[in-house]
Amino acid sequence: MKYDSSVDINIAKAPTSKIDSVDFENLKFGHIFTDHMLVCDYEDGAWKTPEIKPYGPIQLDPSAKVFHYGQAVFEGMKAYRDDNDQIWLFRPDENFKRINKSSARLAIPEFPEEYFFTGLEELLKLEKDWIKKGFGNSLYIRPFVIATEPGVLASPGTKYKFMIICSPAKSYYTGEVRVQISERYSRAADGGVGAAKAAGNYAAQFYPTNLAKDAGFQQIIWTDANTHEFLEEAGTMNVFFRVNDTLLTAPTSDRILDGVTRKSIIALAEANNIPVEVRRVTVQEIVDAAKAGTLKEIFGAGTAAVINPIQGFGYKGEKYELPKLTDTYASFFKNKLMKIQYNLDKDQFGWRYLVKE
Amino acid sequence: MKYDSSVDINIAKAPTSKIDSVDFENLKFGHIFTDHMLVCDYEDGAWKTPEIKPYGPIQLDPSAKVFHYGQAVFEGMKAYRDDNDQIWLFRPDENFKRINKSSARLAIPEFPEEYFFTGLEELLKLEKDWIKKGFGNSLYIRPFVIATEPGVLASPGTKYKFMIICSPAKSYYTGEVRVQISERYSRAADGGVGAAKAAGNYAAQFYPTNLAKDAGFQQIIWTDANTHEFLEEAGTMNVFFRVNDTLLTAPTSDRILDGVTRKSIIALAEANNIPVEVRRVTVQEIVDAAKAGTLKEIFGAGTAAVINPIQGFGYKGEKYELPKLTDTYASFFKNKLMKIQYNLDKDQFGWRYLVKE
Repeated sequence: MKYDSSVDINIAKAPTSKIDSVDFENLKFGHIFTDHMLVCDYEDGAWKTPEIKPYGPIQLDPSAKVFHYGQAVFEGMKAYRDDNDQIWLFRPDENFKRINKSSARLAIPEFPEEYFFTGLEELLKLEKDWIKKGFGNSLYIRPFVIATEPGVLASPGTKYKFMIICSPAKSYYTGEVRVQISERYSRAADGGVGAAKAAGNYAAQFYPTNLAKDAGFQQIIWTDANTHEFLEEAGTMNVFFRVNDTLLTAPTSDRILDGVTRKSIIALAEANNIPVEVRRVTVQEIVDAAKAGTLKEIFGAGTAAVINPIQGFGYKGEKYELPKLTDTYASFFKNKLMKIQYNLDKDQFGWRYLVKE
Repeated sequence: MKYDSSVDINIAKAPTSKIDSVDFENLKFGHIFTDHMLVCDYEDGAWKTPEIKPYGPIQLDPSAKVFHYGQAVFEGMKAYRDDNDQIWLFRPDENFKRINKSSARLAIPEFPEEYFFTGLEELLKLEKDWIKKGFGNSLYIRPFVIATEPGVLASPGTKYKFMIICSPAKSYYTGEVRVQISERYSRAADGGVGAAKAAGNYAAQFYPTNLAKDAGFQQIIWTDANTHEFLEEAGTMNVFFRVNDTLLTAPTSDRILDGVTRKSIIALAEANNIPVEVRRVTVQEIVDAAKAGTLKEIFGAGTAAVINPIQGFGYKGEKYELPKLTDTYASFFKNKLMKIQYNLDKDQFGWRYLVKE
């Protein structure tokens, strides 16, 4: 059950909108939020009636478990407006399933599907004016769950807050990105929470990323913690390598996030006769391919940037530069994906989801 | 520089105290907080004037980075009252150094030493009545730092809140504890944040611990993520094994917290001619010792419980029961440590720290 009009949602509309004060031509990613937010509290073993109310601060006890024990998971999604002013989501069922998978791994109670879809769609209807027409414009949607129960005993909470906040976004261009292949730091452990969108996974990346920046790179390609021989993710994105004309990416695992963009690219590659190998990729084969000139592309894949081309990488003190191709897989997939997202292309996989008026 | 009377602290006292409503004989760990808290904000590249104010909720934007990216670290300490009504801390310099080590690993700005000690001591002077006389009574102290800056871009924040909250505690008895040795889940990765008291490390343990509870155990002994052959920590504590009369514990590493109780036990063992080996301990040698009857004790070590004896363990479907000794290392070290903490024994290592009136 997705959208369900019988779900009770308390809606308190903001008395005024701040939309007119927003410069939609110069949006910094994730900085401006819309007029409303969805809030749903978990107490006494159940999710209570979801509320949509004016966007604003939340009050928590300083001993709330999210502050001390990091019980927090999130999702990233986008809403798109097509030329006929219809509003679309992209594979929202994947985000719904994943937030509950993340929650389960962090001992957070799962959120009901009809609350997720009904709450999200009611919120989007209220915020429709924030979703601007134009290829690349979107409303970034951030569902998240935090443990709110007071108490500094390290145990799962019995009180949680599920929320959705929304931020208008332009297409995300990061400039030329060069990455450092990690030889020392790692993102996740086998048997750990790397496959969950757990808040703590992200803070853990900031310091190694700062070191990479100091060394002249913009991001890190994470390798496996055991041997640092296998390539896993790029920054906060899944990563793809094109060697000759074959696309390579690591399989999902305990350590690797099951990205929606990642799996969509794999499906598009298969549908477009682009050879794709989902297997462990060694640092050595990528270094060898770079030296041999057969490494054509590296790119990250994620909701925020869609696809983030990587122009070069560093490993063991050596720097490797990739060729500047005019006809890239990165732009092919980005264009394909965005055309589906903006209802400009047929949707052969049934990925688009219409937000009904 | 520790306590520094020239540090400016704004103090707003609570109009009334809730102390008379507290049942000090029946305290649940970490549930009741004292009348005041310390708050210090980081903004514009600097820690501002610390404030002590009435304990109460804090307001944060729903996009605050702590909720989404888990930038949060903490410490656990205790204050003790001796028979002459003097208030003592135990090795607070270790907690101070460690919170900044944790912060550095999570790209959080370090907190000034004079703010830490002056803020903490001023807070303790105000809360002195909450620190009850009696062996085992203490005030549990929770310093922590959270990233408060709004914005859903995954990057280190530029705004933080350092806080100290306090909770009165009785001696912590967990009952007979049996643990499951982890064969599948892990606590930390090489090159990860296991050595930091990072909030996200704790949430990651809840689900595997729930599975262990379902299987009839109270806690997990974590093994290394690569091979699950080496014993690392017990629940949220460091872990010690006594084989014959030798004490074994894992060395600190990327994955293992440099516990204050742990290092104090090692020092006490050395000073008391108890053979102690700080080295990697294999699951196999502990299983073999249990079978041979030479495994005398297992115990966890941490600030909250001091020492937590473990009565048995499970591994690969087998259960192992430890002998019930009358003369244990666990009680020897617990007694030694607590006597130092409560100013009942000489302090040969200089571990006690007097909170001046």
